Amino acid sequence: MQREWCNDVTIKILYCGICHTDLHYAKNDWGITMYPVVPGHEITGIVVEVGSNVTNFKTGDKVGVGCMSASCLQCESCKNSEENYCDKVQFTYNGVFWDGSITYGGYSKMLVADYRKPRAAPLLCAGVTVFCPMKDNNLIGSRRKNIGVIGLGGLGHLGTKFAKAFGHHVTVISTSLFKEKRGADDFIVSSNAQQMQAEDLGLHFGHSLSKALSWAYLELLKVKGAFVIVGAPDKPMGLPAFPLIFGKRTVKGSMIGNIKETQEMLDICGKYNIMCDIQIVTPDRINEAYERIEKNDIIAL
Amino acid sequence: MQREWCNDVTIKILYCGICHTDLHYAKNDWGITMYPVVPGHEITGIVVEVGSNVTNFKTGDKVGVGCMSASCLQCESCKNSEENYCDKVQFTYNGVFWDGSITYGGYSKMLVADYRKPRAAPLLCAGVTVFCPMKDNNLIGSRRKNIGVIGLGGLGHLGTKFAKAFGHHVTVISTSLFKEKRGADDFIVSSNAQQMQAEDLGLHFGHSLSKALSWAYLELLKVKGAFVIVGAPDKPMGLPAFPLIFGKRTVKGSMIGNIKETQEMLDICGKYNIMCDIQIVTPDRINEAYERIEKNDIIAL
Repeated sequence: MQREWCNDVTIKILYCGICHTDLHYAKNDWGITMYPVVPGHEITGIVVEVGSNVTNFKTGDKVGVGCMSASCLQCESCKNSEENYCDKVQFTYNGVFWDGSITYGGYSKMLVADYRKPRAAPLLCAGVTVFCPMKDNNLIGSRRKNIGVIGLGGLGHLGTKFAKAFGHHVTVISTSLFKEKRGADDFIVSSNAQQMQAEDLGLHFGHSLSKALSWAYLELLKVKGAFVIVGAPDKPMGLPAFPLIFGKRTVKGSMIGNIKETQEMLDICGKYNIMCDIQIVTPDRINEAYERIEKNDIIAL
Repeated sequence: MQREWCNDVTIKILYCGICHTDLHYAKNDWGITMYPVVPGHEITGIVVEVGSNVTNFKTGDKVGVGCMSASCLQCESCKNSEENYCDKVQFTYNGVFWDGSITYGGYSKMLVADYRKPRAAPLLCAGVTVFCPMKDNNLIGSRRKNIGVIGLGGLGHLGTKFAKAFGHHVTVISTSLFKEKRGADDFIVSSNAQQMQAEDLGLHFGHSLSKALSWAYLELLKVKGAFVIVGAPDKPMGLPAFPLIFGKRTVKGSMIGNIKETQEMLDICGKYNIMCDIQIVTPDRINEAYERIEKNDIIAL
């Protein structure tokens, strides 16, 4: 497919989130990085130029770009507005665009986006990543349930905020003890086996970011509880069969969200005043930020 | 709780299925066997005596006993007729009954059962184990879907029969090549990497019995496809995150079925004329049968 410049929007980037995925790509943890790589898929900026076909945006608009750069628009997933599961989905960076060029992300000054997908809408990767599994598991507007959030980082703290906004009881399970619960109702240190075993949380829903798939985690779930994996460790996780079978439990995968869901998530953030807790890092301190992410030292960043 | 003999039914055992679970217990694969163990939880026989409270059964009735010996009848699961997920469920063998006695299974001549749970109904373990996930995943009465069955043993061949009875397209994925498809539409040898990768099955549903949880298996599933684990390997399976996340796929556990579901399964077997393919083995050949199960040499048994 030829690149059609008339469909493009040029954005001056103002801010870009640092996602753990950026670090995975920078370090080639997944073995798929095409160097040189320019990470960044939580991009906000201002439109400085639009192509002749572009009607949704005009110069000066504040816009956002998320994880997706393009999808085929033809397949069953795309037709169902589930372009994030399109077989040919192209990511904002480290993707091969239709014209053969490599995509570069938001650690940059300018970005050109294809307006045919309104990707100005997805402000964040983290928000929609934790929002969608809650929506899929009927946690919006449901009766109060016990929700577990594993890890209190970028995704975890947003997961906590969404779950609380939806009226649920939230238990954070983390490798390290934070001084504050950051909005959660309860807190468990996962390295404390006694605490993990003593708990009878009966979680309806667990939210995991990384390698945290163990017998103990699965047993925190009620019968028929669901455990959602939204992070991607490079090696297979160990999945014990017994707690899965004996509790009729489910392990689900979920990847970001589609454009509609992203807009819905943003609207809900507006409604409930949900915002990311952030610290601004100047470009010259990105390596330091990466090092602190690796050490889970993000709260004090 | 005291044993109440007035609620008991005494059964003369005629036949008992050999389940791979029996072999796991006999060899203490799961580290939980209480020797001496008498395996067997696919029991059929004839009632020879009933307690004074028993009204559902009378001497001479043909009855069956499945995996469950008792459950608490008090908890949420029991109240929802999901006694197979009761926290205190006692199994037909290698269980500790309320009176402290160890339960012994169907590799025997006589069995005493508590009639308060109509466990005469569950004729089989294997049938209800493969039936329930199909029911739970809306495969009864749904439009034709692509179903994968991993392993063509005791459970797999019944899974194939149910899926075909429900009008689905069935692909069997097995480690070894059978001479006949045994009712399936397609057949893939899992050890043939080329065949596994070349296939674009788009399975809606996969049914696995054992250690078969790999990237290749998960990628046989469509986006949002479900993979159900019904067998219990002793070591954690390797669960790769990428095919789970990128395909919004689900891995589910499921254990046998409750009493209602077991009866429903039996009724459906009657309706569609579904029967197990069996070979009768006399008690003196059980060790030989176990050896052949271990070698997947069951078709020629």
